[in-house]
Amino acid sequence: MPFARRAPTFATKSRDIEGVASLRVEFEFAVVQKNRKPRVMSGMRPTGPLHLGHLVGVLTQWANYCETADAFFEIADLHAYTTEFDDTATIRGAREAMVAVWLAAGVDPNRSTIFLQSGVPEISELQVLLSMITPVSWLERVPTYKGQIDALGQKVATYGFLGYPLLQLCDIAAFRGEYVPVGRDQVAHLELGREIVRRFNHLYGSSKAILIEPQATLSEFPEVPGTDGRKMSKSYDNAILIADDEETTTRKVRSMVTDPLKIRRGDPGRPEICPVFALWRFVNPLRLDGIAAECRSGALGCVQDKGEFAEQLNEYLRPVRERYAAYVADRGALERIIEEGTARAREIAAGVLRDVKHAMRLT
Amino acid sequence: MPFARRAPTFATKSRDIEGVASLRVEFEFAVVQKNRKPRVMSGMRPTGPLHLGHLVGVLTQWANYCETADAFFEIADLHAYTTEFDDTATIRGAREAMVAVWLAAGVDPNRSTIFLQSGVPEISELQVLLSMITPVSWLERVPTYKGQIDALGQKVATYGFLGYPLLQLCDIAAFRGEYVPVGRDQVAHLELGREIVRRFNHLYGSSKAILIEPQATLSEFPEVPGTDGRKMSKSYDNAILIADDEETTTRKVRSMVTDPLKIRRGDPGRPEICPVFALWRFVNPLRLDGIAAECRSGALGCVQDKGEFAEQLNEYLRPVRERYAAYVADRGALERIIEEGTARAREIAAGVLRDVKHAMRLT
Repeated sequence: MPFARRAPTFATKSRDIEGVASLRVEFEFAVVQKNRKPRVMSGMRPTGPLHLGHLVGVLTQWANYCETADAFFEIADLHAYTTEFDDTATIRGAREAMVAVWLAAGVDPNRSTIFLQSGVPEISELQVLLSMITPVSWLERVPTYKGQIDALGQKVATYGFLGYPLLQLCDIAAFRGEYVPVGRDQVAHLELGREIVRRFNHLYGSSKAILIEPQATLSEFPEVPGTDGRKMSKSYDNAILIADDEETTTRKVRSMVTDPLKIRRGDPGRPEICPVFALWRFVNPLRLDGIAAECRSGALGCVQDKGEFAEQLNEYLRPVRERYAAYVADRGALERIIEEGTARAREIAAGVLRDVKHAMRLT
Repeated sequence: MPFARRAPTFATKSRDIEGVASLRVEFEFAVVQKNRKPRVMSGMRPTGPLHLGHLVGVLTQWANYCETADAFFEIADLHAYTTEFDDTATIRGAREAMVAVWLAAGVDPNRSTIFLQSGVPEISELQVLLSMITPVSWLERVPTYKGQIDALGQKVATYGFLGYPLLQLCDIAAFRGEYVPVGRDQVAHLELGREIVRRFNHLYGSSKAILIEPQATLSEFPEVPGTDGRKMSKSYDNAILIADDEETTTRKVRSMVTDPLKIRRGDPGRPEICPVFALWRFVNPLRLDGIAAECRSGALGCVQDKGEFAEQLNEYLRPVRERYAAYVADRGALERIIEEGTARAREIAAGVLRDVKHAMRLT
């Protein structure tokens, strides 16, 4: 999910077969009668290597936005500092590799704007300006605030972390982003942002709206299980990374948990609780019915299933990994893409900031 | 006092004759063996017209800093928004007039850097970066935070207002300010700033200090009474403004309270509790002993005293007001001074920000 605090999390729902049916990327804009592409804002924190979950959950959607929208994709490095401020090496190291995965997944830098958050000072200026009209109580009541402090400890109870949802709004507002794909658990953040925009327009807008209230496009982010059956996440050490080689991938697949009641071939299995089966849907939906039937009947053993799946997974990932390797090998090209996108982003943000400062009578 | 929340407040002390003896501007730097001028940071919020209290309390010191220091004077417009965010007309209107008073009081734009806070985006960038390592609890424990909310209402309980002391630090840190003249009640703010700097250097500095811990130069800001005997302040409507004409000044002086037990000439007065007497010290210290004796003996009546004082006050203010009028009349020149100072300030702040971002591995 965009702006996920750590590794992206997916809308929580049981991994039943119905749930997975909604994986197809759907993208409908509330306002379709516009004769220009709607502006969509999304972003990702550079806090570690990307994995299969990012690829099938978020990046396939992003690749689609390159066609259907005027899309802005943010390398949310400032957001990473709200929780990882003492691990700068990871953040710095993750940046180019993350963008390389984006590109490998089909995000087109010529049909979207890929930019570095900290490279757009206008976002920070907006943050300070909008801080003046944002009640502390609005920020404190965001559910994730106290929740994350409970989870990550007092270390993160910083002024920056408290202002995280405001900074999210500034990311969007700096480009007058109209649509933001969010999971259900992030709707509260966006609603807070909309309240701030309304307050700004009320205080400073006189008759016209200076800032735009961003709309959520409620995305069905698929639940992608990791090797241990929990949500795939770098922090659970259960992720199949884009950067993994095929041998590592095969080894990880072989270590995956399956139905604990299916001990050996012949035992009937329950595909609906098997993480390997859940991953099959992304890799080869055409094999799903066959696998389910063979698993249930007991004809297919887990070892054999994993062997076949590992092969097909590697095949599925191969073109992505090849493109990824090519992008990573040309660090200069990656840096250029980020630089050019950031310059384009700055130009737009500067215009918005000019309007904001004018409305506030700072200029 | 620099960065005062509303009109400048002065170190609270009784208006006894001893207290006033320390009015002479003293300026000693802890480190005198440097072979360059120490960098001094100060600022003022553009929230209304300046008065006699600003002139004798702060600006005479600022004029001295132009000689003794590498001084930076900030038009703290962002700070003004922490409390006056809904009164943008006042903030916008006060800016040039405020600087005109600074210049009229002897602040030399060629020997100091006069700059507009909102014109230096690097300050806002620093604010966002340092927010990541500033515990909310440090900001909440600043005595003025809850105090001002009690005084000004929940309206000001914003994220920006909570971050006010951090923004003060960023004003200073953006220029590696070494010395900050503060009244006793602002020492807590500066100590908080020093803690943040220490934390930054500890987290990101490896062996060298990226940011400087600013030192307080404890200034004895004189208590300047207004016409009603309370501290002179725009919000008490008891101020003698630099922009007042001589007639208005005389009228205001004539309305001043004096010793309530001295009803008519002949009654012995107590100059130590008389606001007119307190103001005499600034305007003509040579007349002090004479006035005190004549007041005590009863030979001098209050009406006569006020008449003489109004004349001398107008005489004292005349050259300042003439220069003020000249500066105000040439708005273009004022704007140029602010622009040039802001450009100079940005250049320095950009260098500091570069070091900060490098230390945090953002670049």
